[in-house]
Amino acid sequence: MDRNLALLKVKDQLTEHRYNHTLGVMESAIALAKRYGADEKKAELAAIFHDYAKFRPKEEMKQHIIDQGMPVELLRYNSELWHAPVGAFLVHKEAGIEDEEILDAIRYHTSGRVGMTLLEKVIYLADYIEPGRHFPGVEEVREIAKTSLDHALIKSIQNTIFFLMKKDQPIFPATFNTYNDLIMNLED
Amino acid sequence: MDRNLALLKVKDQLTEHRYNHTLGVMESAIALAKRYGADEKKAELAAIFHDYAKFRPKEEMKQHIIDQGMPVELLRYNSELWHAPVGAFLVHKEAGIEDEEILDAIRYHTSGRVGMTLLEKVIYLADYIEPGRHFPGVEEVREIAKTSLDHALIKSIQNTIFFLMKKDQPIFPATFNTYNDLIMNLED
Repeated sequence: MDRNLALLKVKDQLTEHRYNHTLGVMESAIALAKRYGADEKKAELAAIFHDYAKFRPKEEMKQHIIDQGMPVELLRYNSELWHAPVGAFLVHKEAGIEDEEILDAIRYHTSGRVGMTLLEKVIYLADYIEPGRHFPGVEEVREIAKTSLDHALIKSIQNTIFFLMKKDQPIFPATFNTYNDLIMNLED
Repeated sequence: MDRNLALLKVKDQLTEHRYNHTLGVMESAIALAKRYGADEKKAELAAIFHDYAKFRPKEEMKQHIIDQGMPVELLRYNSELWHAPVGAFLVHKEAGIEDEEILDAIRYHTSGRVGMTLLEKVIYLADYIEPGRHFPGVEEVREIAKTSLDHALIKSIQNTIFFLMKKDQPIFPATFNTYNDLIMNLED
């Protein structure tokens, strides 16, 4: 799918702020794909559609999780996690994206998963470091991302876990398992 | 079993430093048991024996983990975790402790587990806050322990996870699951 058509399909799903974030993720995802040898076109499309379901009503997301047999443990954790797997479903159904690698990159862009693909890592990290992001620690992750995709990902997940733990929030198990998986497979 | 006999049985298993730590855990465990209504006698015995296997050779611990059908994923994580389940086994076999609550408190004193019993929480926390412990954050946990066992436990687990993550170490899944379990079952 052409970039402009994809952007058109996503624009009316998002607020202006979130659309601008999406443009930032697209820019960062293409840059990371170039740097680490991922498919730039797939990175572009996955980035454009990654937040497609962000503003769907919670009840609708919940229903898709149940009806489509997604992991129901999602419902016990923060609803911020839901738009990623629901997004993968809706981007397929409504926007006609059929590429499984792109859909997986959307599906796992918030939680991560054990055995993340290169494209999934690119989208996860692009979402974290895109130029519109301003929070403590983001600059350090941007720096690390210049030399190591895995180390940048680890730092971003650590930051997320610290942030949630400081607020006594639960951590979605996949996020935590992703951390262990990345750490235990580091080669340097 | 009488306190003095128990101390006698454990003394030649430990270094002097670790024996003194054990006396501290015993003191803290009894105090916590009194405060939160756990069985003081069981707390005393579990505390005395909690580090029974601490100085067994790694190869011996590994063999017990395999032979006794303990979770083999232990072997993929820091060997510091091994002495707890191996200790429960050896305290039963060699010291003749048969009380399952005491053995479980020993078994889970390093990793925690989902659905920790009151006694398990007491031993886990006593091990963390006994008077001989001096590390960043311990004083805060001692303070919290005066009013909430669960909040003190949560803080101690958060500290442990932060400490390990700052060193890019993996986190044993049970520790992480214990954190989520405690957080999701907080009543206030």
